[in-house]
Amino acid sequence: MVKYDKASPLSYALGTTLTFELLLRKGEKAKKIYISNKQRRDETYEKIVALAKALNVPVIENNEKIFLLSDKGNVMAIGEFEKFSSALDPKANQVVLVNPSNMGNLGTILRTGAAFSLGGLAVIRPAADIFDPKTVRSSMGALFSVPFHYYDSFEDYQKEMGERHYYPFMLKAKTALSEAKKEKPYSLIFGNEATGLPDAFLKVGTPLLIPQSSKVDSLNLDNAVSIACYAFCD
Amino acid sequence: MVKYDKASPLSYALGTTLTFELLLRKGEKAKKIYISNKQRRDETYEKIVALAKALNVPVIENNEKIFLLSDKGNVMAIGEFEKFSSALDPKANQVVLVNPSNMGNLGTILRTGAAFSLGGLAVIRPAADIFDPKTVRSSMGALFSVPFHYYDSFEDYQKEMGERHYYPFMLKAKTALSEAKKEKPYSLIFGNEATGLPDAFLKVGTPLLIPQSSKVDSLNLDNAVSIACYAFCD
Repeated sequence: MVKYDKASPLSYALGTTLTFELLLRKGEKAKKIYISNKQRRDETYEKIVALAKALNVPVIENNEKIFLLSDKGNVMAIGEFEKFSSALDPKANQVVLVNPSNMGNLGTILRTGAAFSLGGLAVIRPAADIFDPKTVRSSMGALFSVPFHYYDSFEDYQKEMGERHYYPFMLKAKTALSEAKKEKPYSLIFGNEATGLPDAFLKVGTPLLIPQSSKVDSLNLDNAVSIACYAFCD
Repeated sequence: MVKYDKASPLSYALGTTLTFELLLRKGEKAKKIYISNKQRRDETYEKIVALAKALNVPVIENNEKIFLLSDKGNVMAIGEFEKFSSALDPKANQVVLVNPSNMGNLGTILRTGAAFSLGGLAVIRPAADIFDPKTVRSSMGALFSVPFHYYDSFEDYQKEMGERHYYPFMLKAKTALSEAKKEKPYSLIFGNEATGLPDAFLKVGTPLLIPQSSKVDSLNLDNAVSIACYAFCD
């Protein structure tokens, strides 16, 4: 990525599939579509053009712009969109990431959230940028369907969401995930990739443990989130 | 990575933690340890030097070699090792990856395998290179503890492992993971990241489905493997 700027109000969906997802699920945020003149005039192309027309989003043939925005030679379309945020629903089931630092993880977690019809994702700052085109890409478009919101602190999040069932995932927890009562609405809470959640979370709701061998430090963050979402989603 | 060669019999563990894991769990395969003169003479350093000495592995201070082998400025130690393979135990529980193409996924799956004390990983060719230093790194050292073996075909694997419980994970499967009988020893089978398993696997053992929303194409491969390992591991 040559041109993406974290401070800018704009970000980019790279590739035809992502561009289509942007128009389909978050069309009101799409500003411009850039198409390469090498893009085949196939069914996906027709769908993008039709959707963009319906949404009054200009479609511009501009190879140079695509070259500047993407470092991969195979990107044929780019959707420029305005960054957005959603208010989270206090009645919905959510995942809370406290200080996640890896953009790829953030994207994959959105993808998993979409797979399990998660009600929302809360991200506690400091945290990786959910709008980095790498995150957008690794979300496979789930960024446009799963509601998410950034908070300055866990307390801010808690204040806004009010009473609900909080489940921090911690290696120091005493209750195994399989033994949890799994009450709704729930917040499944995970710490930073390297450091996990601070000990203070042992006093928040019901801390849960995914039992695992001592041979590894811990599971990968997005794997832990997937397991928790699967276990809670039935 | 400047210098790693897929065809070479050697690969590299990048970083002090990985180098230590190599010496601890697969010391007989370690050939040389390169240490930067910028590496602090801390506890990890002392442990690496002591282990290497006990194993007769030379420790060489060589910044240039580290620079050539690693593209990151913060790598302070590299463990050079001979590639290896393990015979899989027909009585052990295993994961089978059919044509995985992503090196990072392969490493994360090894890490998850170690967390759930998986008995072995079978990889069906064509497949990503498990010895690429990127895979070694994303495995967080689990490459040195989880037995794995490459096969030219699924039939070769099946022939060698004989009678056991085969569970292909497929979106076309009729049985949900939560309803499966989970008999041991088992093989949890997953297809390629983009294409999944071929339909022929619908006739192998008991195909299983991780129920998921139609909003995404599918779960990320390593997330699907994690969920399956968690569900089978109790």
